[in-house]
Amino acid sequence: MKAVQVVGYHTKLQLTEIPEPEITGSLDVIVRIGGAGVCRTDIHILEGQWEEKSGVELPYTIGHENAGWVHAVGDAVTNVAVGDKVILHPLITCGQCRACRFGDDVHCENSAFPGIDTNGGYAEYLRTTARSVVRIDDSLEPADVAALADAGLTAYHAVAKAAKVLRPGDTCVMIGAGGLGHIGIQVLKAISGASLIVVDRNPAAVELAAQIGADHAIVADGTHVQQVLDLTGGHGAEAVVDFVGEGGATKEGVAMLRRAGNYFVVGYGENIDIPTIDVVSTEINFIGNLVGSYNDLQELMVLAAQGKVMLHTTKYPLDQFQQAIDDLDAGRVRGRAILVP
Amino acid sequence: MKAVQVVGYHTKLQLTEIPEPEITGSLDVIVRIGGAGVCRTDIHILEGQWEEKSGVELPYTIGHENAGWVHAVGDAVTNVAVGDKVILHPLITCGQCRACRFGDDVHCENSAFPGIDTNGGYAEYLRTTARSVVRIDDSLEPADVAALADAGLTAYHAVAKAAKVLRPGDTCVMIGAGGLGHIGIQVLKAISGASLIVVDRNPAAVELAAQIGADHAIVADGTHVQQVLDLTGGHGAEAVVDFVGEGGATKEGVAMLRRAGNYFVVGYGENIDIPTIDVVSTEINFIGNLVGSYNDLQELMVLAAQGKVMLHTTKYPLDQFQQAIDDLDAGRVRGRAILVP
Amino acid sequence: MKAVQVVGYHTKLQLTEIPEPEITGSLDVIVRIGGAGVCRTDIHILEGQWEEKSGVELPYTIGHENAGWVHAVGDAVTNVAVGDKVILHPLITCGQCRACRFGDDVHCENSAFPGIDTNGGYAEYLRTTARSVVRIDDSLEPADVAALADAGLTAYHAVAKAAKVLRPGDTCVMIGAGGLGHIGIQVLKAISGASLIVVDRNPAAVELAAQIGADHAIVADGTHVQQVLDLTGGHGAEAVVDFVGEGGATKEGVAMLRRAGNYFVVGYGENIDIPTIDVVSTEINFIGNLVGSYNDLQELMVLAAQGKVMLHTTKYPLDQFQQAIDDLDAGRVRGRAILVP
Amino acid sequence: MKAVQVVGYHTKLQLTEIPEPEITGSLDVIVRIGGAGVCRTDIHILEGQWEEKSGVELPYTIGHENAGWVHAVGDAVTNVAVGDKVILHPLITCGQCRACRFGDDVHCENSAFPGIDTNGGYAEYLRTTARSVVRIDDSLEPADVAALADAGLTAYHAVAKAAKVLRPGDTCVMIGAGGLGHIGIQVLKAISGASLIVVDRNPAAVELAAQIGADHAIVADGTHVQQVLDLTGGHGAEAVVDFVGEGGATKEGVAMLRRAGNYFVVGYGENIDIPTIDVVSTEINFIGNLVGSYNDLQELMVLAAQGKVMLHTTKYPLDQFQQAIDDLDAGRVRGRAILVP
Repeated sequence: MKAVQVVGYHTKLQLTEIPEPEITGSLDVIVRIGGAGVCRTDIHILEGQWEEKSGVELPYTIGHENAGWVHAVGDAVTNVAVGDKVILHPLITCGQCRACRFGDDVHCENSAFPGIDTNGGYAEYLRTTARSVVRIDDSLEPADVAALADAGLTAYHAVAKAAKVLRPGDTCVMIGAGGLGHIGIQVLKAISGASLIVVDRNPAAVELAAQIGADHAIVADGTHVQQVLDLTGGHGAEAVVDFVGEGGATKEGVAMLRRAGNYFVVGYGENIDIPTIDVVSTEINFIGNLVGSYNDLQELMVLAAQGKVMLHTTKYPLDQFQQAIDDLDAGRVRGRAILVP
Repeated sequence: MKAVQVVGYHTKLQLTEIPEPEITGSLDVIVRIGGAGVCRTDIHILEGQWEEKSGVELPYTIGHENAGWVHAVGDAVTNVAVGDKVILHPLITCGQCRACRFGDDVHCENSAFPGIDTNGGYAEYLRTTARSVVRIDDSLEPADVAALADAGLTAYHAVAKAAKVLRPGDTCVMIGAGGLGHIGIQVLKAISGASLIVVDRNPAAVELAAQIGADHAIVADGTHVQQVLDLTGGHGAEAVVDFVGEGGATKEGVAMLRRAGNYFVVGYGENIDIPTIDVVSTEINFIGNLVGSYNDLQELMVLAAQGKVMLHTTKYPLDQFQQAIDDLDAGRVRGRAILVP
Repeated sequence: MKAVQVVGYHTKLQLTEIPEPEITGSLDVIVRIGGAGVCRTDIHILEGQWEEKSGVELPYTIGHENAGWVHAVGDAVTNVAVGDKVILHPLITCGQCRACRFGDDVHCENSAFPGIDTNGGYAEYLRTTARSVVRIDDSLEPADVAALADAGLTAYHAVAKAAKVLRPGDTCVMIGAGGLGHIGIQVLKAISGASLIVVDRNPAAVELAAQIGADHAIVADGTHVQQVLDLTGGHGAEAVVDFVGEGGATKEGVAMLRRAGNYFVVGYGENIDIPTIDVVSTEINFIGNLVGSYNDLQELMVLAAQGKVMLHTTKYPLDQFQQAIDDLDAGRVRGRAILVP
Repeated sequence: MKAVQVVGYHTKLQLTEIPEPEITGSLDVIVRIGGAGVCRTDIHILEGQWEEKSGVELPYTIGHENAGWVHAVGDAVTNVAVGDKVILHPLITCGQCRACRFGDDVHCENSAFPGIDTNGGYAEYLRTTARSVVRIDDSLEPADVAALADAGLTAYHAVAKAAKVLRPGDTCVMIGAGGLGHIGIQVLKAISGASLIVVDRNPAAVELAAQIGADHAIVADGTHVQQVLDLTGGHGAEAVVDFVGEGGATKEGVAMLRRAGNYFVVGYGENIDIPTIDVVSTEINFIGNLVGSYNDLQELMVLAAQGKVMLHTTKYPLDQFQQAIDDLDAGRVRGRAILVP
């Protein structure tokens, strides 16, 4: 089959012919890829940023946001059948450790990460297991939802945690209305009665935020912290979901947070650097957020099927992967780039 | 191997020779039985009470409270190794349905129940899967803990739920200090700062309750509801854990419950029969309780290894199963009867 | 001032002239009534159903759903000022017992209930305390929201509890789309991503339910339990909110409930009568619901100000109280009848 | 009456005669002081560290950890009566803001802090309100529990939050076994089944920790992080409660924390300085902790009355306040210094 592989760092991806994956374990599932998201992480992989961390052996197939159709299943698979439309949870998990047994898949002690440390989805077929395939509604197309598998799932996970502690009259600030924030806005409005203020440096992103549900959308122009305080009676917001995490976002975010508020850390880059006295005297919390669980992904697919969460995508045939990556790198992609085999 | 089987209803169990179970699935685990609890349910099975509900084909091996040593494992098993001491969660679960993915094993949509609807543990070996085996501490012996697998796990599950909403100064009433209550008392004192009142009709059980941690132990002599009210300033208890559920227990239990209190239903037999106006005007809750999850069983085994939960047992060789059942039926067993192959 | 009073049971209310209430305590608040809801409970009071329970001395002023303007305040009142528009929490609470200190106002150990056991709001002025007045948005009129003070608050309280445990893909069934259900539907859609099925015997109510947000609205025609099961893949709903509680509603409601589901009891009349074995084997919960807290009322007023919860009302001048009561009794009121002094 | 007052910064406290406080509001409570804790904060006040922050006008009476007997009450006080033994919550709160209405007293928008910004308890009498007095059991003496009012309440609050998310088999690390840690250890063992590792630089404190309930007590000698990892199977602890917050404690504490773990910040001094990528990739949380609520203090007093939490104290007559402060400053106080009028 055709697959796009990492053959070396600081060099280009290569389209090549490799054997189709086969069922080797009784929980294995082979998925015929319908769409694979092109993510900034893919560029970072090529730059060698993940070389040491993943320890993956080259060459291998890249692509960690995948959806498609079930092509074959092991003899113990009961949750999907050949032909089912599915989206793939980004991790392959063991199902036997204590974290897996609580449904905290992402803290599995024995997980693999297709596209990062094992073969991913820039290919015609991919092997995963029953534990990672979520059936999607007939009304959804794999190529349309593939990018929800990782970026969307992360946004859903953080926002669902925030929604659990927000009540009508509370305010949630989201910092960043890009790939993740764009999903986060739609999710919060679908599952919560809280008011939403979105802050972004990019006026176009701010405009989109207002269109898809933000109650207030603010350009980060230096007055934005004060604007948030003004909108919240001088108190700050009960929750801040920070999809940026760099360039000073955390200091500004904390300044927008109310006493006893929750700061959801999603984006990363800079340090949280805050006096313990401030954490104690205002009694605020910092809540870390990784990608969501399998059940989170099921729930996000429900919202997608109900038309409550939508994603802009630009599709490329698989063999135009280089164009897709170049467009992403140059900021020319509207929404998310998707490779379609 | 030797196995004790149900060969018909309204007739006695039979010791017979059947083939040892073998690994057929990659998650299978064969356990060499070290102890199998003899439970009143086993008598009910012989009386035909489960015939229709379980639909099990005769003959089959009975016994649903099992512990032992891992004898063989399928090729995908990672959580235990041959030779490990283990206790068995009572259900074999699929691991692929939404309930399993949340850790709510008992609501698995595709479960089997060894000893009830498939071969159980009155035998030398039993086949289960990796999802049902919990490693136990070196200091514990399978025959000593086997009876915690079902009765103990049910008590732990209910009491852990109660403990989550109880605070110092709150009172928990437990109705019934028999098999389950006896474990429940030890669990509550190990994990909670709440005060505990235990009520039972049997003075010997009441005495034992006081010895193993009850702050107040009361004989149910007709004045017990009033005694509980007196001990709680006339308000009633914040939680009632009802291990009896018959003979008028639920009416009395509700009378002991405070406004906004939680009534944990564990034992069964009679109906809850209460005016909706009473539920509404006092804003009380009734909380159902089935057996615990895999992770609950891990936690109970931690308490057992720490010496915080102990169980009285009377051991019988496997081929004296009839004596064990007769003793149980006649009320001659102190603690729990355990068959040891 | 003018006030409508209960002067005897089984006799009509009487419009009379009584002295205006005055500030006697430092937390007292006198409210000039802008609207007082006419409720079926008022009719029950006249029938003597509350005589023994309330122990109120006659004559007294009736009316327990009140809103208006702050007319005078005691010297320790800081949360409202003269002239503020307010809605009144139905209870006057002590603020000093443990329940009050947790925000569980309705379980206050020393509460009074204007309109039931002390003077209420069928009058020009009413005395309450700072603990019971919630400021409302400038865009809202007291007469428009008064009926949210009790019926609406009860619906909000129950539905907010349900929403806390519902996730996208879960289903909530509401039984009854009348006064409370009508608010409950709007609340659930405003604060949750769950799917909503509404069941009512009245086709007009079912039609309204669909218009204001129900995903499925079903006439209770004998096939409704099966329809709910069909809509939930045969499993039943994760939550049932029962605004009826009589005429067989609880049995039907339980039949619509999924394993491990939550049954929210709001309406009342009949008994919950269910075998403990059913509660245990399906591990369902029954959750009692009384009226909401002060903070719940604040949140409901936020939803009202945002236009997410609306109420149909028919207004009557205060001195036409008899007409309003007659219309209510005869089923001639559309929405809620409101007396306006 | 006699009172010890701050008469200037960088100068000594002065014993003086001032008028007894009187009831001026209907919720006022005058307490005859039975014991007032001497705290390091008192020394910081004299050093001027609180001058700007508190804005208190000099002279005023110092002392913020107080207990005694009710001497007089305003006419609206219902929760205590003259003669009752009480401990004082450190804050005087309004009871009318949204935080107060949720029971989150410490986030009251209009609070006063006796001993810090208004007259405190180094005196014969102190005026507070009904909202701040917690009745204590007859078996307790005010001078013995006074120091639990602030330091103890802070420890209780943080540990109760930790206990809510800890299960048997989980490990909690406490950094610091001094004034707060010493209470924290006793509280955790009283309300939780989790294992407890205590780390402190002072071998005597470590020894005491082991005596009062720590499962493992470790001297912080440079190998302590590794020791904690070794004791937790290399994973780290599910919770870290940091009573130190300076001198590198937060970096070490994070290194002892498991994936998805909770870090409870109580002590302060240094900055939390951690890459957002680390917070995200391990999905850890930082939980701020201020002093506890009124209800927390009630619960702590229950544990004290049950003998589950004990405090070492050294008592001084009120007029020997200077000796007490000098002893504290020189590290000569065993347990907590208490002034007794």
